[in-house]
Amino acid sequence: MPLSRDEQFNAIAAELGYSFEGEIKIGGNYTSVLRHAEYVYISGQVPRVGSDIVVRGRVGDETSLAQAQLAAKICVMRCLVLLRNSLGSLDKVAGILRMTVFTQSAADFTQQSEVGDAASDILYRLFGETGVHTRTSVGVYQLPKNASVEIDMIAIAREGACSGGTR
Amino acid sequence: MPLSRDEQFNAIAAELGYSFEGEIKIGGNYTSVLRHAEYVYISGQVPRVGSDIVVRGRVGDETSLAQAQLAAKICVMRCLVLLRNSLGSLDKVAGILRMTVFTQSAADFTQQSEVGDAASDILYRLFGETGVHTRTSVGVYQLPKNASVEIDMIAIAREGACSGGTR
Amino acid sequence: MPLSRDEQFNAIAAELGYSFEGEIKIGGNYTSVLRHAEYVYISGQVPRVGSDIVVRGRVGDETSLAQAQLAAKICVMRCLVLLRNSLGSLDKVAGILRMTVFTQSAADFTQQSEVGDAASDILYRLFGETGVHTRTSVGVYQLPKNASVEIDMIAIAREGACSGGTR
Repeated sequence: MPLSRDEQFNAIAAELGYSFEGEIKIGGNYTSVLRHAEYVYISGQVPRVGSDIVVRGRVGDETSLAQAQLAAKICVMRCLVLLRNSLGSLDKVAGILRMTVFTQSAADFTQQSEVGDAASDILYRLFGETGVHTRTSVGVYQLPKNASVEIDMIAIAREGACSGGTR
Repeated sequence: MPLSRDEQFNAIAAELGYSFEGEIKIGGNYTSVLRHAEYVYISGQVPRVGSDIVVRGRVGDETSLAQAQLAAKICVMRCLVLLRNSLGSLDKVAGILRMTVFTQSAADFTQQSEVGDAASDILYRLFGETGVHTRTSVGVYQLPKNASVEIDMIAIAREGACSGGTR
Repeated sequence: MPLSRDEQFNAIAAELGYSFEGEIKIGGNYTSVLRHAEYVYISGQVPRVGSDIVVRGRVGDETSLAQAQLAAKICVMRCLVLLRNSLGSLDKVAGILRMTVFTQSAADFTQQSEVGDAASDILYRLFGETGVHTRTSVGVYQLPKNASVEIDMIAIAREGACSGGTR
């Protein structure tokens, strides 16, 4: 019997060596995830685990492509936790419409797509064709708390998926 | 009797010391606000009042966090004027799905979230829980006309809200 | 008899001197275009023709505004090819909700809106009032493959437009 998506998520988390089960706290008057009709919007996520930003710094300078790819994986796992908490289960996800990947880049770092690929690969592994999304990858100058990567997302919920508040 | 949202908007404008009632002109072949079904998209707004960009420059360098927060407030007030003009009244707003906050940042300025908070606070003050939105805050390298901040938004209109053209 | 939008697209392509008919290949586990209900999301497009990035470099430094405007035109033409391939014809487009224009900018380059105007002009020429969209233009620090401009888009499909897979 194949793994459920939630079990598969746990397997990926174990491989990465991080737990994503802690509460995702918000400092301001906004929310991490908001659903309207079948559309689920997820706020920009940095590679935070607990209270630590795991990957910081300018990619292509003090931070390597491999570290940025790890950052992208952590960002997308955080998006997925929010999605799971909002819908009850990742099995309630009907699609991912858009992912935007912001990489804190050195002046001559041009592999923003390769950073995004690390996040896209997790979506594909977890959801298969259902996880195939549109994507925009750009290189920004800074990110909150000196994070190396930030990712936001718009997902589609299956009809009838419940919607938990997650502010 | 509590203030209507439109009256509350005017009170916030008075506190900020700016009038947002002038026409918002567009230079090119696009529009400031566009509604489709209940979704209202608002173009990126810089902190312009009349023909002046009120807050310019790189935040964390020539421009302070406090000035950037003022810029974010002006940007979000401009978004709100567009929303009000499009729907007839801010009382027709059913929610804010997404706000994206772009801050023109110095190389080591990492308080983009604190800039975004200033805008989120205005939405919460005006709309309460209805104004709780998802948010993405990033640090960019430049913005049109050397603006310090640019904000765009997707809002939800109440059923039956009229939709005025606002090109 | 007026030109169809697809004929008009071909006329603009001929003026620009580029062919956009080659397959648009994707390197990773994502897609160039994805439709849900009437919403069509298009991934960030760089000014690529065939396997070449036609306009590279930092705008306002090694790359001029005029070259960046050409880049923006090529980016939007790529978005339009994807839209056409997805819907069968540009005549199936009912609107453009949002265009986001990312310009790889020099520290003091502040004409990001003028870059975006070049893309908006093509949408207006092709679609008339139907092509009037909301827009966000920002100046980023780098882009994939050192592209000077990247553009993504959300379009609206007419009811009944078919949807071809385009991964």
